Amino acid sequence: MTISSQDRFWINRLCIVGVGLIGGSLALALKQARVVGEVIGVARRPHTLQRALELQVIDRAEYTLAQAVAGADVVVIAVPLGAIYNILIEMAHHLHHDCIVTDVGSAKAQVVNDVRRAFGYFPHQFVPGHPIAGTEKSGVEAAFATLFQRRRVILTPLPETAPNAYHMVQRLWEATGATVTDMTVAHHDAVLAATSHLPHILAYCLVDTLAQLDDREEIFHYAAGGFRDFTRIASSDPTMWHDICVANREALLSTLAHFQRQLQNLTQAIENAESQALMSTFQRAKQARDRLSD
Amino acid sequence: MTISSQDRFWINRLCIVGVGLIGGSLALALKQARVVGEVIGVARRPHTLQRALELQVIDRAEYTLAQAVAGADVVVIAVPLGAIYNILIEMAHHLHHDCIVTDVGSAKAQVVNDVRRAFGYFPHQFVPGHPIAGTEKSGVEAAFATLFQRRRVILTPLPETAPNAYHMVQRLWEATGATVTDMTVAHHDAVLAATSHLPHILAYCLVDTLAQLDDREEIFHYAAGGFRDFTRIASSDPTMWHDICVANREALLSTLAHFQRQLQNLTQAIENAESQALMSTFQRAKQARDRLSD
Repeated sequence: MTISSQDRFWINRLCIVGVGLIGGSLALALKQARVVGEVIGVARRPHTLQRALELQVIDRAEYTLAQAVAGADVVVIAVPLGAIYNILIEMAHHLHHDCIVTDVGSAKAQVVNDVRRAFGYFPHQFVPGHPIAGTEKSGVEAAFATLFQRRRVILTPLPETAPNAYHMVQRLWEATGATVTDMTVAHHDAVLAATSHLPHILAYCLVDTLAQLDDREEIFHYAAGGFRDFTRIASSDPTMWHDICVANREALLSTLAHFQRQLQNLTQAIENAESQALMSTFQRAKQARDRLSD
Repeated sequence: MTISSQDRFWINRLCIVGVGLIGGSLALALKQARVVGEVIGVARRPHTLQRALELQVIDRAEYTLAQAVAGADVVVIAVPLGAIYNILIEMAHHLHHDCIVTDVGSAKAQVVNDVRRAFGYFPHQFVPGHPIAGTEKSGVEAAFATLFQRRRVILTPLPETAPNAYHMVQRLWEATGATVTDMTVAHHDAVLAATSHLPHILAYCLVDTLAQLDDREEIFHYAAGGFRDFTRIASSDPTMWHDICVANREALLSTLAHFQRQLQNLTQAIENAESQALMSTFQRAKQARDRLSD
């Protein structure tokens, strides 16, 4: 049972579905904050659960969703976007009626759609969420308790979402050291397409382009610091990013089209050696980037 | 006078033209390696020379090229590419006949062309060079002695280049902790277009695209770790990168065209939700990137 008062936040039984970088780090963060009783993990591969137990990321491993969510006060779905729908279908009839469910998916319109399709309506205890955190690494071995500290978490509650469910998930993320804000689903998907999905596509595309050149061995040999920073995100999990491209297709295509027009303009400026156009583009970009801290 | 034997490398008088991040770091590295007698700095702005003296990057400041290169054993030209030609013209008649001259420009075809135009021929003591090192910061304040440690320096000697000049510049860079290799001019320019110039253009273009959106304030607010790494190079010096775009135009346009075709293919794969194409692109890219150390 969930006890949540103004002075004490406590989750008696937490179920993490998908014990990877995000799910595992969340479990570790909540354990470190001493706000959780028991953490139950469920994952597709038994090996993941074995490692999660050994690393004390979870307290108990379950091999079916029915057993994993039984008696859970909060369920966090932390699997790639493409796997969410089947998980919802499978768990729907096993959830305690006041169990709160949230997810960590990077594209919210599809998650909301999956929830509606799986349940036939949007349950009041479902809170769509997205921690803006992660590294290029994946898997439970890469999980660490401080991943969410000073990071942002965006929740995209629907009109159907119950305030108590929203506040529960808000406090859960705040306990990890994150700052929680809310946004509409469409706005979240547009902002993330620009700041996260587009950069990943560009990094993957650049590395793949170079990897197909005849002198690729030599090319990568001369890749220095700037290149390493720029392409680090191309080491991210391919399945996760495949799913994001499919799930956030519309917003991503729109921001990609915008970027391609700008790149075409810049290419023409290089072709015609238009000094003023080049300088003003680079200066505007530098000014915008300098405003961000490192 | 330059004393260079097999057992002892020594530069009596070194002149650095342009005391910025690269020129300043080179001076500091050679001082730290105790292989240089006096370091003379010359720069466009008196303030730069003042700071370079205060930071003990240089031992003596000169305000004209004629005075700066007089009696120098080695001259290193470390200014943006667009400024090299005028500097060569200005210094040509003041160089000691066996003074060795090198540069640090990121595009070698234009430097070689500038040298030929300025001197009327390619002097045997000129060694075109390029340290593959740097940060997004610029200016003498950002200089540090270890910038070149475990980095690569590419020299692109011409048939006219004298072996003793080549070896002098090779040992100069080796004294900073760098590994020196040589390449043809055209090959250097193609490799650098792919591994350095293209990524910079993409980072500038992405940040500029986002900076022009209506909700740019909010967009940058949600930019997390991956975005920061990806766009760090967009803080680089606009003049330097303007000059690189102009100087390495041909190679850059060719690699840009290649990238744009790949991006168009990837966009189509997203549009048509071609799972296999997306997965294989991301997997190939991840595999190539994982092979690089961080």
